[in-house]
Amino acid sequence: MQHVDQLIHARWVIPVEPAGDVLPAHTLVVRDGRIAAVLPTVVAERDYAAPRVVHLPRHALLPGFVNAHTHAAMSLFRGLADDLPLQTWLEAHIWPAEARWADREFVRDGTRLAVAEMLLGGTTCFNDMYFFPDEVAAVASEAGIRAVVGMIVIGFPSAWARDTREYFANGQAVHDRYRGHPLIRTAFAPHAPYTVDDDALRLIAVRAEELDVPVHMHVHETAREVADAVAATGERPLARLARLGLLSHRLLAVHMTALEPDEIGLIARTGVSVAHCPESNLKLASGFCPLGALAVAGVNCALGTDGAASNNDLDMLGEMRTAALLAKAVAGDPCAVPAHAALAMATLHGARALGLDHETGSLAVGKHADCIAIDLGALRAQPVYDPISQIVYAGHRDQITDVWVAGRRVVDERRLTSLDEQHLLATAARWRTRIQPD
Amino acid sequence: MQHVDQLIHARWVIPVEPAGDVLPAHTLVVRDGRIAAVLPTVVAERDYAAPRVVHLPRHALLPGFVNAHTHAAMSLFRGLADDLPLQTWLEAHIWPAEARWADREFVRDGTRLAVAEMLLGGTTCFNDMYFFPDEVAAVASEAGIRAVVGMIVIGFPSAWARDTREYFANGQAVHDRYRGHPLIRTAFAPHAPYTVDDDALRLIAVRAEELDVPVHMHVHETAREVADAVAATGERPLARLARLGLLSHRLLAVHMTALEPDEIGLIARTGVSVAHCPESNLKLASGFCPLGALAVAGVNCALGTDGAASNNDLDMLGEMRTAALLAKAVAGDPCAVPAHAALAMATLHGARALGLDHETGSLAVGKHADCIAIDLGALRAQPVYDPISQIVYAGHRDQITDVWVAGRRVVDERRLTSLDEQHLLATAARWRTRIQPD
Repeated sequence: MQHVDQLIHARWVIPVEPAGDVLPAHTLVVRDGRIAAVLPTVVAERDYAAPRVVHLPRHALLPGFVNAHTHAAMSLFRGLADDLPLQTWLEAHIWPAEARWADREFVRDGTRLAVAEMLLGGTTCFNDMYFFPDEVAAVASEAGIRAVVGMIVIGFPSAWARDTREYFANGQAVHDRYRGHPLIRTAFAPHAPYTVDDDALRLIAVRAEELDVPVHMHVHETAREVADAVAATGERPLARLARLGLLSHRLLAVHMTALEPDEIGLIARTGVSVAHCPESNLKLASGFCPLGALAVAGVNCALGTDGAASNNDLDMLGEMRTAALLAKAVAGDPCAVPAHAALAMATLHGARALGLDHETGSLAVGKHADCIAIDLGALRAQPVYDPISQIVYAGHRDQITDVWVAGRRVVDERRLTSLDEQHLLATAARWRTRIQPD
Repeated sequence: MQHVDQLIHARWVIPVEPAGDVLPAHTLVVRDGRIAAVLPTVVAERDYAAPRVVHLPRHALLPGFVNAHTHAAMSLFRGLADDLPLQTWLEAHIWPAEARWADREFVRDGTRLAVAEMLLGGTTCFNDMYFFPDEVAAVASEAGIRAVVGMIVIGFPSAWARDTREYFANGQAVHDRYRGHPLIRTAFAPHAPYTVDDDALRLIAVRAEELDVPVHMHVHETAREVADAVAATGERPLARLARLGLLSHRLLAVHMTALEPDEIGLIARTGVSVAHCPESNLKLASGFCPLGALAVAGVNCALGTDGAASNNDLDMLGEMRTAALLAKAVAGDPCAVPAHAALAMATLHGARALGLDHETGSLAVGKHADCIAIDLGALRAQPVYDPISQIVYAGHRDQITDVWVAGRRVVDERRLTSLDEQHLLATAARWRTRIQPD
């Protein structure tokens, strides 16, 4: 009999690796926050003892979702400005609102609201791009969620930094402060090709190597962005990033709706990952990312919700469903991105894009115990022929009952254990009244 | 002081007519199952007394959803066969499964499961196309949901009818039996242009006039259906339906993904309604229905979930969200199908397509009290700037707490009052084991 910290017995365990596996009546054995074993419950009950034992008789246990692209703090702008042309949305609503409100306190409160939503929805790791990444890191650490915080670089001043030099310096300070933290990593987060100049991008390519961190960037979000770049410089943004040395396994390119076939080949060869954000792309009419074609070409495709100002939720289960459905229509092939592939994109591929696939993203021995329980016993989920299909095509986030990050149960039967829900509600109400008085 | 049956006080009432209205702190006054008044709560409390008073302090009250196209009984096939080419899906899975299982008992049990899911998700009226419509009607009546049951006509034999003559006769018998029923209506439901011959369609055009009922039919579901028809006969299916006298305000054409601009003009002129089923269209890679262009042309567009074998849920709130998001990308315009228009499609336009807009679909005085309460107080719904936007772009069906049909509270704080959930779960489990033994 081996003594461990926790045993989680589930009706089904879906490890994501190997792809498509569904293990009935299996148990996750947790020791020191990591997965010590995945094995049949009858064996686990014979061989292991633990002070904490969780029974999930109607549930599937799977890796937590990795939200590969968000702007968490923007949750405070959820629904502030919808149904508008993109330029009006940005120039008349979002940018002025950010200029007016996006200070340190806003980022702290907005990120806390977002993290609460993400945890309750089964996200155990998120990749953020916003101002005050030190606040994002502090909130994530407090809440017990894994996070990659963006060392943002953008060609205009903000409350976080006045100029490029200060963006780099402030980002570096966050990186240094969180070195070795068990939950927090950093990434360079140059906003987009059209807001960051060549010198800054060259420096990022070098520094990302030195610090061994990913580069997280909006790329080819719309056909117009590409056309504008070509009109101004004769060069497509991806070609420019290639010239500046940015195309490598470090780059997580977000959106990627406007792609030529040779560009798909280029990013496949250079190891670039794509963060697909289907709901934001649909809502802003940005275009269709060719997810099926990218997957066939061997590109590592992750999924992100984008910020709540353009989605308007941070629901990775819903995003996975939208991605799986939309990919079929865009490819003209109902076999494109089958359920198990969509689940891998929402978990393991996200971890891989962030350089964290040796730490999280699947239920493999040695990885952190970052996992979630989904109740498949609800009336509207019946009957269950194939649990993976059921989760991807008919699952909803309110079926998620429990969430663990590094073995810590941060959601316990649908309640947050690390954040105070009443306090968050009161804070959101206060911001609502400040931003838009009745 | 007037005495009425029920007062429903809500934080917001969203009547859908007039479009975009949001009435803060309003009350729905219900008498004899119909809406007697909609007025400020302070006035309602002064002027009305009722034995039943409901307080919804964090909720929006709106009309129930009208699911304009489904095959309810197919819920028992939910997730049985996913990620397959359309013809394989139909010929190797769905049709054989129907031939083997779709008897009277299957339809009864499957429809009951579907109705439970629909009620819990805020659907108060559904338009069904399946075998044994008498069973569908009986289940809907028992559950207290409004339904339009299809007098199905299809060019091959089934357990319900052996030939066209029997399909007509059996359908007519259902119509006659439910004449004058408070909740049940019928519609002719010729399956599709490629499964029903000219003689039967001509007869349906005549009989639909005589019986004063709608005609509910799959039309132009895929580009291939259109191409096959042109190859075989030289005529596009819509042109054939026009020649046979089917294009009128009676016709509810489902899917409509393959449309030429002049066909959009034709259906706008003739008053045809469209039932848009975005999630089914995406999942089966059927094509993109031009929802924005149809709306601009003045076509009455309703929304449907299709059956759970191709969706895989019967979630009208989710379908509305998908429709609103997808329409923007298809139109290339983030202003296409704004939130209030999507809400009207999911409610009033569905009622109109079924000839029921004088009875349901909006919270107007004199209509049946078919309404739902959505809790906007949940953490993940914060902050609330615009309740309609919040419901359409960030709402989830688990926020629906209460549902009334003709004033009867069929869902009471998330519990079904007219169906036995435990019995439904046991029945679904039994079918699961029969259809696919472990």
